[in-house]
This record gives sequence, C-alpha cells and structure tokens, in this order.
Amino acid sequence: MIDLREKARENLRLVREKSPLVHNITNFVVMNYTANVLLSLGAAPVMAHAENEVEEMVAMAGALVLNIGTLTDDWTASMIKAAKRAGELGVPVVLDPVGAGATRLRTETAARILAETKVSLVRGNASEIMALGGSAGATRGVDSVHTVDEAEKEVVAAAEKLGVPLVVTGERDLITDGGRVLRVENGHPLMSRVTGMGCAATAVIGAFLAVDGDPVTAAATALAYYGLAGEIAAEGAGGPGSFQVAMIDALYGITPERLGEQARVSAHKA
Amino acid sequence: MIDLREKARENLRLVREKSPLVHNITNFVVMNYTANVLLSLGAAPVMAHAENEVEEMVAMAGALVLNIGTLTDDWTASMIKAAKRAGELGVPVVLDPVGAGATRLRTETAARILAETKVSLVRGNASEIMALGGSAGATRGVDSVHTVDEAEKEVVAAAEKLGVPLVVTGERDLITDGGRVLRVENGHPLMSRVTGMGCAATAVIGAFLAVDGDPVTAAATALAYYGLAGEIAAEGAGGPGSFQVAMIDALYGITPERLGEQARVSAHKA
Amino acid sequence: MIDLREKARENLRLVREKSPLVHNITNFVVMNYTANVLLSLGAAPVMAHAENEVEEMVAMAGALVLNIGTLTDDWTASMIKAAKRAGELGVPVVLDPVGAGATRLRTETAARILAETKVSLVRGNASEIMALGGSAGATRGVDSVHTVDEAEKEVVAAAEKLGVPLVVTGERDLITDGGRVLRVENGHPLMSRVTGMGCAATAVIGAFLAVDGDPVTAAATALAYYGLAGEIAAEGAGGPGSFQVAMIDALYGITPERLGEQARVSAHKA
Repeated sequence: MIDLREKARENLRLVREKSPLVHNITNFVVMNYTANVLLSLGAAPVMAHAENEVEEMVAMAGALVLNIGTLTDDWTASMIKAAKRAGELGVPVVLDPVGAGATRLRTETAARILAETKVSLVRGNASEIMALGGSAGATRGVDSVHTVDEAEKEVVAAAEKLGVPLVVTGERDLITDGGRVLRVENGHPLMSRVTGMGCAATAVIGAFLAVDGDPVTAAATALAYYGLAGEIAAEGAGGPGSFQVAMIDALYGITPERLGEQARVSAHKA
Repeated sequence: MIDLREKARENLRLVREKSPLVHNITNFVVMNYTANVLLSLGAAPVMAHAENEVEEMVAMAGALVLNIGTLTDDWTASMIKAAKRAGELGVPVVLDPVGAGATRLRTETAARILAETKVSLVRGNASEIMALGGSAGATRGVDSVHTVDEAEKEVVAAAEKLGVPLVVTGERDLITDGGRVLRVENGHPLMSRVTGMGCAATAVIGAFLAVDGDPVTAAATALAYYGLAGEIAAEGAGGPGSFQVAMIDALYGITPERLGEQARVSAHKA
Repeated sequence: MIDLREKARENLRLVREKSPLVHNITNFVVMNYTANVLLSLGAAPVMAHAENEVEEMVAMAGALVLNIGTLTDDWTASMIKAAKRAGELGVPVVLDPVGAGATRLRTETAARILAETKVSLVRGNASEIMALGGSAGATRGVDSVHTVDEAEKEVVAAAEKLGVPLVVTGERDLITDGGRVLRVENGHPLMSRVTGMGCAATAVIGAFLAVDGDPVTAAATALAYYGLAGEIAAEGAGGPGSFQVAMIDALYGITPERLGEQARVSAHKA
C-alpha cells in the first residue's frame, strides 16, 4: 500500500520544483486570495476568463480550476470551452461547485459542466457535494449543513454514480473515487471564518494534480498540506484576520519534510 | 426612551445567534473584504449578481446589500430585480451609492434604485448623500468633501424628502429618518485609509437590519460596533495594512457585553 | 544633471500634498490591493470601467491606469474610450500589459491600445515588454522568463521603435524612453511572491505621473519608493502574507526625507 505521508512529501517537492501554471476561472471574491495561496505554495497562478482566450491559456497550464462562486452565463460558456480544450490536451480539471444546491443556476451549471466536460475531481462542502449527487439535502447560501460524517456514505455513492472523484472538506476532509476512501485530519476551525478558504483549497488541489496523476492522492496530500498550514497559522492568531495572514506565511514556509511528518492522511475501505 | 447601548448589545448577540445570510450585489474592489467582515461578525455572506439567480438567492437572505462602486448597466438590472423581490418578501435592502455625485451614471443609478424599489436605508459619505438629496455639493471621485457637521441639516431634510433613512459616515456618523437623529462617535481616522471600509460598514448594517426591524437603531448600533473595532484595531497598528488585519480580528473578538459598555451612540432632536 | 534622490523626495511630497485621483481600469485580482496601495501612498483611487462612465470619470483624474490582467473585449472598449478622452484632456495614461506574449488576445490588445491611444508609459515584466517590442521571447502565463540584464538592449530599442517610455521591473528595474536609461535598485525578492505587486507598482507610477510630467523620472522615483517599501516590509516578515501587510504599512510610513536618502536610482547612457 502507498505511503501517504511519503506521497505528500513528494508531491509538495514536485510542485515547488516544477511550479505548474494553474489556470483559474474563479469567482471575484476569492481571486486575490487564491492567487496568493498558489504563489505561496510555489505554483504559478493565472486568472483568465475571456471566451476568446481560455483555450489558448489552458494549453499552457498544468491544471484548470473552475469555480462557480459568482457565476453568470457568459462565464459558464468560458468554463465549458476551457474544460473541453483541457480534456483534449489531458490537462486535469477541478470543479468547485460553490453554492450548488442553493440556487437552480448553480446546481444546474455544476451538473452541466460535469455532463459536458471531463472533470478530474470535484471539491465542495458537504451540502454542495450532496446536491450534485442528487441528495435532497438543502444548501443555505454557500454554507454547509451536513457534517462530513453524515455525508460519507452518500458521497461514496455519489462518486460512483457521477463517475468522478469527490472531495468533501469540513471538520475532517473526505476524498473518494467510489472505490478508495481517504480521510485528512489536518485543519483548524478558524479556516471556516475566512472567505475563500475552500476555493483556495480547490486551487491547491489543482496544483497537486499537475504533478500527481491520481486525483485521490493528489487531493488528499494537497489538503493535508493546506490543513497543516491552518494548524500552524492558528498558533499565534488573534482572530480570522491575523489567521489569514499567517496562513499565507505557513503555506510558504512548510517544507516537504515537515509535511511528510505532520500530514494526517489515512485510507479506509469504501 | 430606548437604551441604545443595551440595543447595541442585543443586536450583536442576535446577529451572532442567528447568523443571517447577507446577499451582496457589490463592487469588485471590496467583495473579499466585505465577505471577511461579515464572517468575522458572525453573519453569512453570499455574493451573487446573475440576473437569472438573484431573485432566488435574495429569498433566502436576511438582508440585501446593493453597492454601485464598480457599476455597469447589467449589474443595475440585477440590483433592481433583486431589490424588487426583496420588497415583495419583506427582506430589508441597504443601498451604498458609491460615487453618487461624481458621475451621471452613479447619481442616476442610485436615484433609479431609490425610485423603483423599496430601499430600507442608504449609507454613504457626506458628498454621496448630498448628491442623492439633490444638493449642489460636488463629489470628487469617491471621496467626501463635506464634513458631517456641515451636512447634518441637509441630511435630515434629504431623508424627509426622499422618504428613506439616511446614514452619513465620516469622522462622526449621523443616522436619521427625518424625525430621529442619532450620532455615533466610535471610529478611528485610519478607517479612511483602507479601501472598502465604508462599503463593509454598509454590509454590517445589513446584517444588523436582519435582526432589528428599525433601520435607525440597526444602523446606529452596527456603526458603533464597527467603529469600536476600528478603535481597538488602531491600538497596535503600524499603518493601514496591519490596521486592516487587526480590524477583522477585532470584529471577531468584540463581545456583546463589551459593545454594550463602549458603544458611543446618542439621540438628538432633528 | 537632475538629482534623482531630490526628485524622488519632491515627487512623494507632491503626491501626498495633492492626493491625485488615479482612475484605474484594472483586473479583478488586484483591484483591492491596488486601491490600498494608492491610499497608503496618499493618492485617491477610483475603479470605474463602464463604457458609459469612463470618459466622465477620467476627466476628474490626475492619471489613468490601464491593466489587461483579466481582459475581455468589453473592458478593452472601455479602456480605449477612457484613454482617448485622457489624451484629449492631457491626462497621463499608464499601460500594464499583463500577460502580453502569453496569448494572442493580450498581445494584440496591448498593441491595439498603444496604436489607438496616446500612452505615456508602459510597465511590465521583461517578457511582456519584449512581446510588445516584437521580440520572439516567450511569456509563460504572467511570469517573466527574461532577466532585466538580458533585456536591457532590447528594451531601449523597443522604446525607440514604439515611441513610448518603457519600464521593466524585476530584480532591478529599468526605465527608458530610448534616449535616457535609468535603473532602480530598490526592492526585495519577496515582492515576486505576492500577486498584484507589479500591477500596484504601475498604479503608483500613475500617481507620480500626476505630479511629474516627465514619465522617466516619475516612473523611476515611484519605483524607488515602492521598492524601498519592499525592503522595509521584508525586515520582519515571516513570509509573503506578513510581507504584504507590512508593505502597506511601509508605503504609508515612508517620509519624503527617508525616500530622498534611501532611493537607489541611477542614470546611464542608452
């Protein structure tokens, strides 16, 4: 069986070495934070959403990150165009279905992206992932109303049904492709008090996918790294403001060795 | 007469308890900061501006915040659609007329939103509020060229004329519905050196409106809370950067009890 | 010969005194940071991109800053409209060709803005400036693949060919109008690990252009100020997060006198 801590160490080393270009078509709220998270990690972020540019941009990228947090139909068209081209080129695509389940537009757009393109992995909170899987669970705005524990069985079933690896982040993170189930214990409650924390996690997963072809291990190791940064950042934080600043410093400062020692990733039967 | 400190304490307690969803259709510059301010307060922010989504989103919200800071006509259409639906549902609407008086587009759009929808309250700097009231006072960009003192009489008259409660923030804040006049003394000069401070104040007023049906007391207590955070943040700040970070920490850390003790709100005859 | 340190001192003093309005039509990623940088400097930022507003807004401005970082065609139309009006009014225009060379849309749009309007100065990284000059040098995303040293001769030739002063920022900054060549040594490597650092530098140049009619000295003194802030910010920084916060504090705190003493600007023959 694969040594997940060793894999985390290796993936972070590879991202720092290769500095993959991560092409984001994401929401207005989190663009700045997402770019800074990727830079601190050692990846190279680019934001580009013009329909007449995305195909050319994604051809240079190591991963494409789609995020529907401030969605309009013209952005959806660009996302689908970019993702189709990514599929042709073998560039991995990560989808963050922000607010799926909250409004028809978001639920249907997320479903449409999944149906019309080849998405490598979806990351959301429990309610968003439930909504994609067809669960009756309600989403309230962009908040989660399920816990990871309640959701685990449903998520595994949804990954099988949808045929795409799913990641639910929350108090504990869950990663599954329907067969394998990984859990990540790293993280800190303050992460839920800063906007864009989940969105940036999705982008970090994108960077890891650029160096690790297995979405399940890429996502789990990315989240261990990200959650560890949260733990470190919380140590001296006086609130969500200083926590967010310290998070960027921690993402920058974590060495592959430290991640290899402090990643808390475990594998379970589905 | 109402005890305004007690009201401040109670309103903050209620926002923390109910965590109202605040639906923002706001400008690109301040989206991230506004979301983080609302999260630190304990409210639940959502940003959504698609014309085919805003009616569904606002139906879940405790308040709708409209901000014209980076306005285009398609956003205006969404704002009006959302505000009309909010009116039908009894969801309070706060308008931040950023740059009204500076350009025809902004002045006319703010006036159009006021004419076509039922706005619960408008917050701006003195020049913006003067412009809405039809004053000849010029706005220079988004800066204020009036002081609150010069403006007080004009503002009270404008609130009567427009039939909507008005809030002017500045060195000292003024809240009036034409009948009552409240003043808030909390705050710090560094607040004027960080972008989006006023815009986020408007969003905080939105969150307080979700738990207090009286726009005048909701706005005054929200601004006391926000200004107190500014005072606390300024204590150890080395400039606007560390001040902004400390502001988020302070918004998170202020207890209802502390606000009840340190709010500086007073009532005056109009 | 002009005393460049004295010029730096004088320009910063003038910006603080006059607080010029800087009209930005810039990208979504950096809007917030750019506004905070300008406020910390002492300038007055405004972001406005509506085609039916930009001509009126730019008429109030001391400088117009165009940035193509998250470009779409409707934004290009607004940029050109604003820049044409700026040209009629004598308002200086700075162009930041983010990602020129990376995609056709960006390269062609930057070239089109240069051809159709009167740009006062262009600032980019080496690859972007090379791309505008018609060099075969490739851009990877928005990263630079040339060093300033490799690029110097090409940049001087490009400035002559394009007929516009060019600024290349990097480890060392280069400013040339084809005749004069200035170099700025201030700065810190952490500046490359925060998104929008270059974009905000362009906006600072805009503010200096509002008080100094010579683009070459305005840019050089602006970059000395900005780079000095980077040096000061790096002193206690634990990573890019705390560095960015300290940068805003430093921009706010640097006095004209300190800049006059610590600016490292030098003139060379082209």
